[in-house]
Amino acid sequence: MNIILLSGGSGKRLWPLSNDIRSKQFIKIFKSKDGTYESMVQRMYRQIKTVDPDATVTIATSKTQVSAINNQLGEDVGISIEPCRRDTFPAIALATAYLTDVMHVPADEAVVVCPVDPYVEEDYFEALKILCERAATGSANLVLMGMEPTYPSEKYGYIMLAADQVNEPGDEVAFSQKTWKASLPDEVSHESGNATLGNERERLLGKCNYNPLGEIFSKVSEFREKPDLETARSYLAQGALWNGGVFAYRLSYVLNKAHELIDFTDYNDLLAKYGILDKISFDYAVVEKEPDIEVMRFSGKWKDLGTWNTLTEAMEEPVIGEAILNDKCEDAYVINELNVPVLAMGIKNAVICASAQGILVSDMQQSSYIKPFVDKIDDRIMFSEKSWGSYRVIAVEEGSMTVMVTLNPGHGMHYHSHKLRDEVWTVISGEGTAIIDEIVYRVKPGDVLRMRAGQKHKVIADSELKIIEVQIGEEISVDDKEKFPF
Amino acid sequence: MNIILLSGGSGKRLWPLSNDIRSKQFIKIFKSKDGTYESMVQRMYRQIKTVDPDATVTIATSKTQVSAINNQLGEDVGISIEPCRRDTFPAIALATAYLTDVMHVPADEAVVVCPVDPYVEEDYFEALKILCERAATGSANLVLMGMEPTYPSEKYGYIMLAADQVNEPGDEVAFSQKTWKASLPDEVSHESGNATLGNERERLLGKCNYNPLGEIFSKVSEFREKPDLETARSYLAQGALWNGGVFAYRLSYVLNKAHELIDFTDYNDLLAKYGILDKISFDYAVVEKEPDIEVMRFSGKWKDLGTWNTLTEAMEEPVIGEAILNDKCEDAYVINELNVPVLAMGIKNAVICASAQGILVSDMQQSSYIKPFVDKIDDRIMFSEKSWGSYRVIAVEEGSMTVMVTLNPGHGMHYHSHKLRDEVWTVISGEGTAIIDEIVYRVKPGDVLRMRAGQKHKVIADSELKIIEVQIGEEISVDDKEKFPF
Repeated sequence: MNIILLSGGSGKRLWPLSNDIRSKQFIKIFKSKDGTYESMVQRMYRQIKTVDPDATVTIATSKTQVSAINNQLGEDVGISIEPCRRDTFPAIALATAYLTDVMHVPADEAVVVCPVDPYVEEDYFEALKILCERAATGSANLVLMGMEPTYPSEKYGYIMLAADQVNEPGDEVAFSQKTWKASLPDEVSHESGNATLGNERERLLGKCNYNPLGEIFSKVSEFREKPDLETARSYLAQGALWNGGVFAYRLSYVLNKAHELIDFTDYNDLLAKYGILDKISFDYAVVEKEPDIEVMRFSGKWKDLGTWNTLTEAMEEPVIGEAILNDKCEDAYVINELNVPVLAMGIKNAVICASAQGILVSDMQQSSYIKPFVDKIDDRIMFSEKSWGSYRVIAVEEGSMTVMVTLNPGHGMHYHSHKLRDEVWTVISGEGTAIIDEIVYRVKPGDVLRMRAGQKHKVIADSELKIIEVQIGEEISVDDKEKFPF
Repeated sequence: MNIILLSGGSGKRLWPLSNDIRSKQFIKIFKSKDGTYESMVQRMYRQIKTVDPDATVTIATSKTQVSAINNQLGEDVGISIEPCRRDTFPAIALATAYLTDVMHVPADEAVVVCPVDPYVEEDYFEALKILCERAATGSANLVLMGMEPTYPSEKYGYIMLAADQVNEPGDEVAFSQKTWKASLPDEVSHESGNATLGNERERLLGKCNYNPLGEIFSKVSEFREKPDLETARSYLAQGALWNGGVFAYRLSYVLNKAHELIDFTDYNDLLAKYGILDKISFDYAVVEKEPDIEVMRFSGKWKDLGTWNTLTEAMEEPVIGEAILNDKCEDAYVINELNVPVLAMGIKNAVICASAQGILVSDMQQSSYIKPFVDKIDDRIMFSEKSWGSYRVIAVEEGSMTVMVTLNPGHGMHYHSHKLRDEVWTVISGEGTAIIDEIVYRVKPGDVLRMRAGQKHKVIADSELKIIEVQIGEEISVDDKEKFPF
């Protein structure tokens, strides 16, 4: 399977874990089997590789996320980097060209595109495989995955099906089909007679329900924007599905569309022109104009973890980090990234999250509404994941900022200088090599290096290297940085 | 008025604001008239000096609190330092000897002793003046202040009155006396006829109620320990008062008692022998053996701010520090000593407190029960007030600790060395003079000083001086410190 993961923007709805440069998909919040925590992107990557070890995974993202992706997934993953923000059509076109021209995937193969942030299980990726296969071999130009609604939501778009493919209320057979589930061969509970479990593919399809014609793919009639509650109810009555933004197509299909709309030769040319491309959405450029679209129902686990109340539902344990909860706490979740403890007493139905960025204490319901308040908060970046490790601000004072810098073994930062600040490095653990204005120093714990404004400097870690960096200057800014080759 | 303020031990019930070395009385949580925050001890000292500018104030305390007292009250306040912990009789005897021998107060004057931590208004100190005056001029050896109970509390000791001095239930005159209040001359509401507002003293006595005999002092019959609820109710029916630990006596009275029990000549001799004194309480040594004790009723504001639910009641505004509360919050209090924001959403009847020590999020009722949980928490001191300023731990790692040191202008730390750690100082603001192994350095922002284990060092601030201190060593402990004269 070829898969493009869309790794989107910054998330303020999960403040203080997410910030302007750490998007929610990089937060390590999910406990994996070995007891360590993994992020959404790590979890999804692991799931894909479990379901299909040969999958070609490409992450379509912006420049700011590349360090975090390499840090969390290693260097093997494909990354299609958008040089600047355009809309979804240029982004998907670029990633598609990346697959053919950089990853050398034949243009008659199909690819499935899906967002990186829903919380899903492996059956989701089994379904994506089927979707991808259908796109490669079927006649439809686009094959979507439609999520079976569990309530009349106002926050999703809806996929409307052709009338003959929709269950009628009270239709017993249709109903039993809708509820038919079989996640493992031995657990098949086949409540109606007209869906045939003929082969391995259909067994894996456990959670991809059949339409009333006994097909797993239905014809799409149209798309609807986020509705109000009453409209959402009527959509559900019409058998509509949530639009999860998951779709598959043959590479050639989107490349042709791209060539129709954009004058470019190949991936590198498209990349070079990216900044001058029109902002246009994939929906507008492709989906709305395409008459031949199919959708596959999916009723397995699919959760949008965009807000604290949904994110906490996916936590296997109520506490991550150092925290004590007394026995009067109920439905209380604590995520503590600080190195001091949280004590929660008698807290009910709430989330507590402490990071270097700030502290959130929110009633679960209210946690959906934090964005306007977070917008008011000074958005100084207090921590950041880099390709070489990470940094965390530990003290901010007038005229100075103190940072803990951690370099991963074998990694080094860019050779760079600052115009408006001096820096003092005190090595607290690990060993490595520092270079200041072309002079090389071996460093170990207790060593101190002092860089005046304008002096070029970098450090490379042998073992994990931790440094306390004191920045001193009238104006301290992340933008005050000039990089040099070395 | 002479007054001894008993400034007691460490408080875990107000964690994370209080810790093993910052007792609750030093937490700056009360908004004063000029908008700055003051601590319990600062508030009380200011109130005393307002009521009686000539008051001789002596704080009886342990060595660990001297820095914080000098830092918060200046150098003028008298401090009777207990070299080690004995019980209340040695502590009060030492402070009494301090008054006569160090402060040169004549032994026939009286002193009033009171704890430093109740939350009171100025009428309380007006009452203390009267108490002190009665002890000096009256016949009783001890004059107590009894707090008029507002509910049958199980957490206070009770002062029982002689039978003829107690109001009978249904006694209309007595009842009206008990509720008689007059805090200011113009606001006198005199509901019964037999209490005479004859003079200035009685006007000030607004909140010191009269007993049924029309006297403001009653004879004490006995003392009772903290009762259970039912017993407390019966005490209230008998007209008993809460024992707030406030009492006055002539200096000579306690000095005589001390000489009876301890072989010493004067203050310095008592101080020298302090470590070998028996642990004995003032109640056991003096109060229980004294037949001639009077009590004065007090029904003004008197709150024990020992737990979060009582402390928050005394907060003038629900937020101290950087915090945003949305409009769905009710009865939510935030004290944030960190330099990142707290966002509270829909939090009701709860306290949120964040300090370098940790983060508490507690239902108001449950906040009384934090102690056993705090006992479990690693009690590494993350901040401390010193006579020369303060320090705050900003990062703890294996083999290192990073601290922000702030020196007040004109102050300097002791000349000292460490056996097991190196230190690196990076000056981030202010100017001063550092001394390392007898060599003097002028320091300014950006300067770096490096002290190897064993090297003697100190720094003195000209202007407020801030330093990032990185401590590096296998074993980092506050006990690893040798002081030298300089």
